[in-house]
Amino acid sequence: MSQRPLNVGLIGGGGGAFIVQPHQRAIHFDGTRRVVAAALHPDPKVALEEAANWDYPITGYTNYDEMIEVESKKPIGERVDYVVVVTPNHVHFDPSIKCVRAGIPVFCEKPLTLNLDEAQQLVDAVKEAKIPFGVAHTYLGHWTSRFARFIVTSGLLGEVRWADSRYLQGWLAGRTEDAGVAQAEWRVDPKKSGISCCGGDIGTHALMQLRYITGLDVTKVQANLVTFVDGRLLDDHFTTYCELSNGGKALVRASQIAIGHKNDLGIEVNGTKGTLIWDQEFPEQLKILLPDQPDRTYFRGAVAANDGFLGDLPEELMAEPNIPAGHPEAFHDAYARLHRCFEQDVRAYNDGQPFSCDGSKYANVQDGLNGMNFIQAAVNSSANGSTWVDL
Amino acid sequence: MSQRPLNVGLIGGGGGAFIVQPHQRAIHFDGTRRVVAAALHPDPKVALEEAANWDYPITGYTNYDEMIEVESKKPIGERVDYVVVVTPNHVHFDPSIKCVRAGIPVFCEKPLTLNLDEAQQLVDAVKEAKIPFGVAHTYLGHWTSRFARFIVTSGLLGEVRWADSRYLQGWLAGRTEDAGVAQAEWRVDPKKSGISCCGGDIGTHALMQLRYITGLDVTKVQANLVTFVDGRLLDDHFTTYCELSNGGKALVRASQIAIGHKNDLGIEVNGTKGTLIWDQEFPEQLKILLPDQPDRTYFRGAVAANDGFLGDLPEELMAEPNIPAGHPEAFHDAYARLHRCFEQDVRAYNDGQPFSCDGSKYANVQDGLNGMNFIQAAVNSSANGSTWVDL
Amino acid sequence: MSQRPLNVGLIGGGGGAFIVQPHQRAIHFDGTRRVVAAALHPDPKVALEEAANWDYPITGYTNYDEMIEVESKKPIGERVDYVVVVTPNHVHFDPSIKCVRAGIPVFCEKPLTLNLDEAQQLVDAVKEAKIPFGVAHTYLGHWTSRFARFIVTSGLLGEVRWADSRYLQGWLAGRTEDAGVAQAEWRVDPKKSGISCCGGDIGTHALMQLRYITGLDVTKVQANLVTFVDGRLLDDHFTTYCELSNGGKALVRASQIAIGHKNDLGIEVNGTKGTLIWDQEFPEQLKILLPDQPDRTYFRGAVAANDGFLGDLPEELMAEPNIPAGHPEAFHDAYARLHRCFEQDVRAYNDGQPFSCDGSKYANVQDGLNGMNFIQAAVNSSANGSTWVDL
Amino acid sequence: MSQRPLNVGLIGGGGGAFIVQPHQRAIHFDGTRRVVAAALHPDPKVALEEAANWDYPITGYTNYDEMIEVESKKPIGERVDYVVVVTPNHVHFDPSIKCVRAGIPVFCEKPLTLNLDEAQQLVDAVKEAKIPFGVAHTYLGHWTSRFARFIVTSGLLGEVRWADSRYLQGWLAGRTEDAGVAQAEWRVDPKKSGISCCGGDIGTHALMQLRYITGLDVTKVQANLVTFVDGRLLDDHFTTYCELSNGGKALVRASQIAIGHKNDLGIEVNGTKGTLIWDQEFPEQLKILLPDQPDRTYFRGAVAANDGFLGDLPEELMAEPNIPAGHPEAFHDAYARLHRCFEQDVRAYNDGQPFSCDGSKYANVQDGLNGMNFIQAAVNSSANGSTWVDL
Repeated sequence: MSQRPLNVGLIGGGGGAFIVQPHQRAIHFDGTRRVVAAALHPDPKVALEEAANWDYPITGYTNYDEMIEVESKKPIGERVDYVVVVTPNHVHFDPSIKCVRAGIPVFCEKPLTLNLDEAQQLVDAVKEAKIPFGVAHTYLGHWTSRFARFIVTSGLLGEVRWADSRYLQGWLAGRTEDAGVAQAEWRVDPKKSGISCCGGDIGTHALMQLRYITGLDVTKVQANLVTFVDGRLLDDHFTTYCELSNGGKALVRASQIAIGHKNDLGIEVNGTKGTLIWDQEFPEQLKILLPDQPDRTYFRGAVAANDGFLGDLPEELMAEPNIPAGHPEAFHDAYARLHRCFEQDVRAYNDGQPFSCDGSKYANVQDGLNGMNFIQAAVNSSANGSTWVDL
Repeated sequence: MSQRPLNVGLIGGGGGAFIVQPHQRAIHFDGTRRVVAAALHPDPKVALEEAANWDYPITGYTNYDEMIEVESKKPIGERVDYVVVVTPNHVHFDPSIKCVRAGIPVFCEKPLTLNLDEAQQLVDAVKEAKIPFGVAHTYLGHWTSRFARFIVTSGLLGEVRWADSRYLQGWLAGRTEDAGVAQAEWRVDPKKSGISCCGGDIGTHALMQLRYITGLDVTKVQANLVTFVDGRLLDDHFTTYCELSNGGKALVRASQIAIGHKNDLGIEVNGTKGTLIWDQEFPEQLKILLPDQPDRTYFRGAVAANDGFLGDLPEELMAEPNIPAGHPEAFHDAYARLHRCFEQDVRAYNDGQPFSCDGSKYANVQDGLNGMNFIQAAVNSSANGSTWVDL
Repeated sequence: MSQRPLNVGLIGGGGGAFIVQPHQRAIHFDGTRRVVAAALHPDPKVALEEAANWDYPITGYTNYDEMIEVESKKPIGERVDYVVVVTPNHVHFDPSIKCVRAGIPVFCEKPLTLNLDEAQQLVDAVKEAKIPFGVAHTYLGHWTSRFARFIVTSGLLGEVRWADSRYLQGWLAGRTEDAGVAQAEWRVDPKKSGISCCGGDIGTHALMQLRYITGLDVTKVQANLVTFVDGRLLDDHFTTYCELSNGGKALVRASQIAIGHKNDLGIEVNGTKGTLIWDQEFPEQLKILLPDQPDRTYFRGAVAANDGFLGDLPEELMAEPNIPAGHPEAFHDAYARLHRCFEQDVRAYNDGQPFSCDGSKYANVQDGLNGMNFIQAAVNSSANGSTWVDL
Repeated sequence: MSQRPLNVGLIGGGGGAFIVQPHQRAIHFDGTRRVVAAALHPDPKVALEEAANWDYPITGYTNYDEMIEVESKKPIGERVDYVVVVTPNHVHFDPSIKCVRAGIPVFCEKPLTLNLDEAQQLVDAVKEAKIPFGVAHTYLGHWTSRFARFIVTSGLLGEVRWADSRYLQGWLAGRTEDAGVAQAEWRVDPKKSGISCCGGDIGTHALMQLRYITGLDVTKVQANLVTFVDGRLLDDHFTTYCELSNGGKALVRASQIAIGHKNDLGIEVNGTKGTLIWDQEFPEQLKILLPDQPDRTYFRGAVAANDGFLGDLPEELMAEPNIPAGHPEAFHDAYARLHRCFEQDVRAYNDGQPFSCDGSKYANVQDGLNGMNFIQAAVNSSANGSTWVDL
């Protein structure tokens, strides 16, 4: 039997924001989820106007408090089944914790909150409410991210010795914040962005990709945060040397002044048996390098088990409903996979069934807290002569 | 003001077919279109069962005749606004022409029909009905395809001398049709596939990409169709040497036995001033090679006008609502762009307004006929010692 | 015991010619060969002047007749052990056949001669003289060419179905011959270049690479030779569709108007079991694509036998004295490998021992004749409506 | 007038050593230099035997002391014009300083010496002797290294903010030193290799490439040296975060346990105006990324001045005698370019003329000392909790 599509509410997303667009596409992607309501803007009038002119009919709310109040009173099936929080960083915490307390599952943009204290509160609230909570670490949604996680965590590369996880961009190499680019303005503003710009905005993605693919945690960090562009209050360049929970080492690093790099998130892992290389800008591929072997390039959709390196693949990797190799997936497909997995947990929650929300399919609130911890430790280390700081 | 989402009906798509999946995702992508009805299977019972179990609620019909009859009687706003035809090749013509005659716009998979005669009838019917009709030449939907078309047709590379348009796959290198792969079975069967397998299935995409990007037509062709796999009745390898409408020359070629090639559609154009290289598997990039210059690689989302080669770009290229460079688009994004453009024409049609359907945004019925003409000429040439045949 | 270095004589190479440079470097590369004499230029005065000012001391001759006469009278150990012919095409035949008849081994640039008749005379003369004769098909000298030949001819890819061998350049896209570029002037002049410019100059390399790697011959050809640049008497674009000696098919094609292509010689071979891809501009790599396997990229110096595809490698491939992987070899290394192999045959010849000169290590005079045959057949086909012509 | 070839002596190189091979090829490459004498091995008997069986006739010496004594007494023209020192690290200092004191120019492998004290002595000796002294930082010899140096030091990328210079290998990921590989044995032995294995052997190349291309020095360093393979006494993984003399920052890093990396030396430089990317394994290319521009890939041999980024190029870059683009240069060509430049300085020295030896064409003894300084500072930092250490 067909199931009714889930109803999704947007918190934030007005005013020409970017990130609401891929979320919407990912929500609608499968026909099994749809946006039905939104609190789009802090200005109530703008919020309603934008809702009325949205590309398709939605219920507009003057603000998220109103939305939460009204929606949470409706019965399941009529109310929003979950909300997506796509506001700037400093408006992540408040709507998220209110939704959680009102029993509405949340899929929140990263970084989770503005500071560690808020993050911890949110973790506690989610724990108490026993509710699905996702954090939008987009790149976990790539099939190749999951394939990479399987390869490393199942030991096919032996023990992890070294990883280099990077996220390089160049769009803040000049004073972009003076050019009327709203995306830049709030990111370089400590009040809206938090204690780190480059580290918080994209370094956390590099960290998450490392943790997801290796299954390891960062236990100690030594950091150099640099502000290259005059007049900025926050870092635009972020480099950490890390110790991992298995004793391995890693670089987790990010830049916003690397001109020409578009959205260059990538990771290399060196294990005792081989090397793995993954790049977000070429998300259909995964390279595996083994001693005395040709370089291997795997492609999503063209992976078989009997190739002399891979043994049996877990069913969920092989059964993944997707398009054949050579019909490339990309950014929206990754987002959609996250929402597809979150949908399953929300449907279970609606039905009073158990749901996993364990970080294996999308980042959860603990992952969000972990990222906040990492940024705080890095900021502390850098402010203190780049000494080692424990997480 | 928000607009109601368009209603889309599916003809075909049941039984685990592949191509219906990207169409559905593309339809839902923007929230402004949705699938509401379907005639999924030739067996009426299966058709209804599959509809009842579809991922989301849709109206199931026993067959497309019923769907066309019922839907065409409903008023606009309640009925399907357009249908997508995703049946095997031999069932493209009948539902398409019936929809056209019933006033329902059609977005049809390629090749347009089983033979030239059907294709011509369809062209005539569309002309008479003055109705939007699209053909699913997916790859026109990439931003880089449009960018390439702009570059070549605006003369930035000078006069086109030579083009090499290829579409290479390897999935039919063995007797895939004996392995229970339905996709392979009907493609190698002349009754369902038509007069050419490799040429009709993928050679037509290579032709369309050439015609779209250069704005030129093939006027003469010399062809070699080969069947490499024993026991097949149709070609699995297809090579043509072509004369173009400006006097230039081209290869249009395809293979289904090129092991390891996933979905390798690509084109190179050599003009008197420079060279353009485009590859479907890396659809975010476009390479431009100029004399005495470094190789240039353009990326969707990072193209500016003032770079010493490009002059002013047409607004529609720059205004294209999309995600920033480095957040890659891919296959589904291309499909979605086609449906987005088709939506505009359908909305105009519904409102009794003029619509273009001129082949600049998606392939139209004339393009479909042109492809049928090309395949027929190639088959004739190959059967006759690879002599030149006029189109 | 150390051996005395072989003495090499140059015929041609003055006047700023290009190709003499890599030959010289390749000759000196190993310390076991050295240039000691030269007839550098058709003008005797220039020939002597240039010899006197050569980078290092050599014996200058007024012309090659003098050189052959004087040197052939000297005893082995004092005379030139072999000559390298690096004159324009129309001056290949005469010095080559005279050296052969005088008992001096020849390493000659390609194409072998100006026409088939000369080529046949040379083949006959070499046969009668039982003397080493090499033709400078440079690209056979890459380790990866030999590795590719081993892979295909040992059947690891099954039966060859299809090959696409190309050689694309862009340097003649304009009227380069009017810009004082001597290299261009003689190539477009039928009196100096022969019956084909693009086909003879570079198409023959594409043919040779195909024949060397597959071990197959072209038996029939259908050709289109085109002159894109106004005022030229010979082709600057060359496309042939070929039948191979095993029944497979192939494209052998070349262009001199493909702007931005530097020296783009490459070949792809599709066998019944897999695909091989080789590119001259990246000569350290060889790609192998197998069904249901990741793409494999082999690197010279990092090839082991036990990788699930390769079985035992022939000793000569593994024992090849070379530098480790990642310390790239390139153009000069390929040339040097040819001269190194030719040296072995010349030393055997000097000692009255058997020598192979069988085309497995460098192209021989039969390969040169084969290339001339191919070009003649292609010219005939193209002149006759691109009909099939037997070789 | 032709000039006599220079005579070169080898110190070290017997026993199947690797690095002597590219040196020999580079020496002979142009025909203007040749190896004539050698002290090949510490065992006098082996030294003479190997010399007698060298590929070509050379004068064998029992040891380098004998060679220096005998040769330095001969007049210029008969004696060795320079020596190449290709012994393991701990035998660099003694023969080098003895040659320098005997008036014989030296081209020495890196690292310069076993420790800082030796390095300083050598610098002083060279200064006193006023003699050409080169250090074999091979990769400076690539045309693209010089092109990169020109681009950065002439300010085309603005001020340097950040550089990431890496040298990654995987050949010591296991206990290679137990497998009878002499190359591995001495490198992991502190007595022969010095205070650092990974840093000294390849980290110094990464440093040199950074200093050469940017013209900047490292002023402070924070280092993590790690030994991943059990039982080793020296580092096999080396990471430093550096401050540069202009206030910029950099990573200089190396690994010998990065399985699958062959010889992966590369550098990226981010300036205020753009980015430069260079990779040793693809030494024909240089990538330049500029804001709002397509990525540019320059190829050696196809660089023109009028491209919208480059202005006038220095003559020495354009006049460089080389082969056309697409006929790739590689490792041996780089080595040869170093020896070619060193030859000029040696000829000037022989003639009593001034010579530059200023580090612009090949690394000199000061560069060697600088590398030793860097390694010492890195070792100190790492031993002391990765604190900052001044150079």
